[in-house]
Amino acid sequence: MPETPAAPDSLTMRKRRHVQQRIIEAADELFAANGFDNVSVTDIAARADVGRTTFFRYFGDKAEVFFAREQEIIEAITDHTTRDPLGAALTLAEAVGQLRPIVLDLCDRLSANVDGYSLHHELIEKHLELRERDALKTQRIADELSDLLIAHGTEESIAVFASQVALACAQTARRRTKSARTLTADARAAFDQLASLGT
Amino acid sequence: MPETPAAPDSLTMRKRRHVQQRIIEAADELFAANGFDNVSVTDIAARADVGRTTFFRYFGDKAEVFFAREQEIIEAITDHTTRDPLGAALTLAEAVGQLRPIVLDLCDRLSANVDGYSLHHELIEKHLELRERDALKTQRIADELSDLLIAHGTEESIAVFASQVALACAQTARRRTKSARTLTADARAAFDQLASLGT
Repeated sequence: MPETPAAPDSLTMRKRRHVQQRIIEAADELFAANGFDNVSVTDIAARADVGRTTFFRYFGDKAEVFFAREQEIIEAITDHTTRDPLGAALTLAEAVGQLRPIVLDLCDRLSANVDGYSLHHELIEKHLELRERDALKTQRIADELSDLLIAHGTEESIAVFASQVALACAQTARRRTKSARTLTADARAAFDQLASLGT
Repeated sequence: MPETPAAPDSLTMRKRRHVQQRIIEAADELFAANGFDNVSVTDIAARADVGRTTFFRYFGDKAEVFFAREQEIIEAITDHTTRDPLGAALTLAEAVGQLRPIVLDLCDRLSANVDGYSLHHELIEKHLELRERDALKTQRIADELSDLLIAHGTEESIAVFASQVALACAQTARRRTKSARTLTADARAAFDQLASLGT
């Protein structure tokens, strides 16, 4: 978000969050009703009762509002360690073990809205622009996870590999899963299966 | 390529390949000299001495010609099994073992042009459009690898996971590597390290 920072609980910040949520809801409703191509930024702004300039203060483009929830979830990755501080992981297995609950929690959040999840994936499959943005956001999740481990003292080369392995588990679950209901269970099964690589 | 198929060694096919290579070389020279944003499809077509319509017969857009070599390499994935037929992999470890030489060979090919590799990655870092296309092509490599295993009888759920794990090794090498010269060695080291996940 290209906004200047304000204290997290200030009135300004609450107002901004409210406007942002209104834009996201308007976009979600329009995408659900009309698909992605047939909805313009002007349509979304009008339904959210804001101007186009305001829209662009919150979102860089139409794809960005489409992935607004994923973006929130990516940005919340660092909250985990506030609740549950990590030590430096000394091995790849230890680092993957640290990322496991974080990735399972991401899966829970991403699949919380079962109908929304299906619609979201249908639209992604249909549009190159969304597939590209999705692929980039997915890699960004790995980079965030890696940065998190590094910030807690894990060596960069371990952190980078562990985050790619954790992402492999999540991506496998996304591809294996037919319904949002099983996403987290499928990701958990993938993490469990990793141990078989040592045999 | 949105062209109608012709016999692989026919004159038509050789001509097409020649035109395609001329477009790729023209684009490479222009990108190297002027960056990505300052080069248009019209510039590329003019330098390759073809019309814009011809350009679009070979490439969907400017990013597609930027990633032409990656695309060739992706399309060549299936050649491996013609040379070296695979059996059905019964376990995740076996499937990852089958993908290992294929991915190492991909790394070799992607890093063969040392200077080109660096320039390519500098431009990718600078442009959202290229980062997105790169992320999507990367996921497409995993999907091709998975399809390859499935075509040789490996169960889909094993194939999907193995291809994501193999991709994790390649992505780790890309992120750890400072020079194209060490890409394959770094990927090999990552594959070796996977065994430590079982401990």
